Amino acid sequence: MSELTGNALVGQSGGPTAVINASVAGVVAEALNHGCIEEIYGTLNGVLGLLHEDFIDLASESQQAIRALRHTPGAALGTCRYKLKKQEDYERVLAVFKAHNIRYFFYAGGNDSQDTADKISKLAQQQGWDLRVIGIPKTIDNDLPVTDHCPGYGSVVKFVATTVRELACDHEAMGQHDLVSIVEVMGRNAGWIAAGASLAKRRDQPNDPPHLIYLPEVPFSPEKFAADVQRVLKREKYCLIVVGEGLIDADGNYVSAAEATDAFGHAQLGGAGEYLKSLVEQNLPGVKARVAKLGITQRAAAHAGSKADADEAYLAGQAAVKAAVAGETDKMVTLLRGDGETYACETGLAPLADIANGVKKLPREWINEDGVSMNFQFARYATPLIQGETAVPHDAGLPVFAHLEKVSVDKLLPPHEAK
Amino acid sequence: MSELTGNALVGQSGGPTAVINASVAGVVAEALNHGCIEEIYGTLNGVLGLLHEDFIDLASESQQAIRALRHTPGAALGTCRYKLKKQEDYERVLAVFKAHNIRYFFYAGGNDSQDTADKISKLAQQQGWDLRVIGIPKTIDNDLPVTDHCPGYGSVVKFVATTVRELACDHEAMGQHDLVSIVEVMGRNAGWIAAGASLAKRRDQPNDPPHLIYLPEVPFSPEKFAADVQRVLKREKYCLIVVGEGLIDADGNYVSAAEATDAFGHAQLGGAGEYLKSLVEQNLPGVKARVAKLGITQRAAAHAGSKADADEAYLAGQAAVKAAVAGETDKMVTLLRGDGETYACETGLAPLADIANGVKKLPREWINEDGVSMNFQFARYATPLIQGETAVPHDAGLPVFAHLEKVSVDKLLPPHEAK
Repeated sequence: MSELTGNALVGQSGGPTAVINASVAGVVAEALNHGCIEEIYGTLNGVLGLLHEDFIDLASESQQAIRALRHTPGAALGTCRYKLKKQEDYERVLAVFKAHNIRYFFYAGGNDSQDTADKISKLAQQQGWDLRVIGIPKTIDNDLPVTDHCPGYGSVVKFVATTVRELACDHEAMGQHDLVSIVEVMGRNAGWIAAGASLAKRRDQPNDPPHLIYLPEVPFSPEKFAADVQRVLKREKYCLIVVGEGLIDADGNYVSAAEATDAFGHAQLGGAGEYLKSLVEQNLPGVKARVAKLGITQRAAAHAGSKADADEAYLAGQAAVKAAVAGETDKMVTLLRGDGETYACETGLAPLADIANGVKKLPREWINEDGVSMNFQFARYATPLIQGETAVPHDAGLPVFAHLEKVSVDKLLPPHEAK
Repeated sequence: MSELTGNALVGQSGGPTAVINASVAGVVAEALNHGCIEEIYGTLNGVLGLLHEDFIDLASESQQAIRALRHTPGAALGTCRYKLKKQEDYERVLAVFKAHNIRYFFYAGGNDSQDTADKISKLAQQQGWDLRVIGIPKTIDNDLPVTDHCPGYGSVVKFVATTVRELACDHEAMGQHDLVSIVEVMGRNAGWIAAGASLAKRRDQPNDPPHLIYLPEVPFSPEKFAADVQRVLKREKYCLIVVGEGLIDADGNYVSAAEATDAFGHAQLGGAGEYLKSLVEQNLPGVKARVAKLGITQRAAAHAGSKADADEAYLAGQAAVKAAVAGETDKMVTLLRGDGETYACETGLAPLADIANGVKKLPREWINEDGVSMNFQFARYATPLIQGETAVPHDAGLPVFAHLEKVSVDKLLPPHEAK
């Protein structure tokens, strides 16, 4: 494979995570090792930056700033909800790449983002523009296929499980059997995050909280729910429930959405957590229910981040550059788990098209028959992903995050006009 | 003052905090220094343990367990919602004290708990039972009078401000001016916690989030709210709001409760956060609103705890023992702030009766004229309380908290029967 000399561009897409910036740090650090990469740019707000030439010069950022990306949540380059759709959009992106001599393109994101990267890659091939495109996996939802797991997932699980363990200390202090505590976590289509809360159980303590986990994978039954809660309250001082926001009923409707309007057309507030609370209050007299809805805080909780996760996100960024320099293109970096007894993470590559069109479901066989707890196979899978604590520097009592100077790269083309 | 020899008893009361266990650790550690204290017991579940002789032998706990209390959230001795009311209850408590030769009683809690301690103390005096009673302040609500601040407050503020800073990184990544992010925090009657979120602003960056803080101290106006949000969204990419759960309208009703039933009598779900979300959706077309409700997680978040807070909670426990041994009784330990430029915390004493009957309001003059932000006086007050990070040991990726053996003390009286 002949050496390809030119500029590199890195972008971020989709919902931020606690570690997507670590992947950018990995790209930048590794790019500096390779003379064939002349400039290293970042595109602002994902594809919007691609269309509008909104690039910044990442090589001019300080070493501290790039290092600080390793513990900074959010997406330092910005992201967007915009999706390239028309052929003109892709043509424009390629024109921008040519104008800036972009020969390496690294894109951190989920399915949609890998699909975008794939299409850009294919168009470049058609047009004979020598371009190496490598995707970097990213999603708290952990639903990308092929890769063993996704950077971002370990940190959100660590935070959620930490929160459950702390809540347990709090609730344990109350001496009465009348508290149902509900924690609503993210996961619109899959229960990976809710399942991760099960790691809060200490080894060989199956009765530890979370006592009940409600997953989108298991159709929800209000009758079984009431029985589940009563069973736990007989045994324990309190019942700690973790529920995924995407809980669905037997007909496949979101339980919160199913309750979204009543017979008079009034909007109901709240999500799956508030819905479970209302079920408790309606069906279990004398039992109090309280809800915590972690919302976006969970994917931003770098202060409780997993070091394994941040390190792997960084590794994935490095691996993307190494693969591209070695001649690979149209692939996404995957995380592979070694076969040994001790967890080891290596990187691999998979065709972008395989990622773009697939979704990794939480395996049904990792859910216990009771439908509300996870078995040892899940624990074996997920436990290594939350190991180690991210070291976040603090100033005046609060975490300090990366600040990028964002020196703009000169625009070389006429402004983009949406058609 | 003659030396008083006998046993000591420590209890916890009210809602747990991240550091109330640190106060118990301080009591136990200090008690070991004084030969006049023979046994050191803990009462389980506060006053319930007092009535039922549910005592444990704290001296038999391991050094590690007592040390681990310094970073363990919840209330390791248990707490309860029960309140002593009848004279018979107090008589029973005193009988129990006499049976176990309790001469020192330390009680960590809020107003109600200090009131209970005061009444026990007064009854002992009436009956000529030489008893030294010292209260230890505790409440995330920070509303105890006399004391400069309350152990528990600094940690919850540190966690909330950390969360706001992390959310800011996440939201900053989105390039559109259409997101309202609402964080609901605790504080039924006072805005101390919501106000604390203002510490997330970096120095000299008044436009940093939180952009708007809605406090129970400032009657809520939906019209002003809509104008506030629009003003922020013009200037910023997103609008981050922190709201105290106890927000009230101009008539003094909780805004969430005011909306609790609609014209058809349907219960509405959610609290102040969901209420603000509904206002955004009704009044600002095209703007998305998202809610995070931290719930009880915030008062249990030891993993993001303030070292200053935990140290002061421990100090308060030690000070309680020192004061009692020195002959003080019927007092609560207070935290005092030195006059110097550098923050220094010392302890003082105040009559229990002064604590029991007062509430410390968030000073109106610390709230800016806009009603939605805090001024430098608040920052100067609260910043020292969140300094330093609690070191929580982790095992297998998750925090490890204290486990007490809870060796029971033999009961010496006939069982208590509620009359």
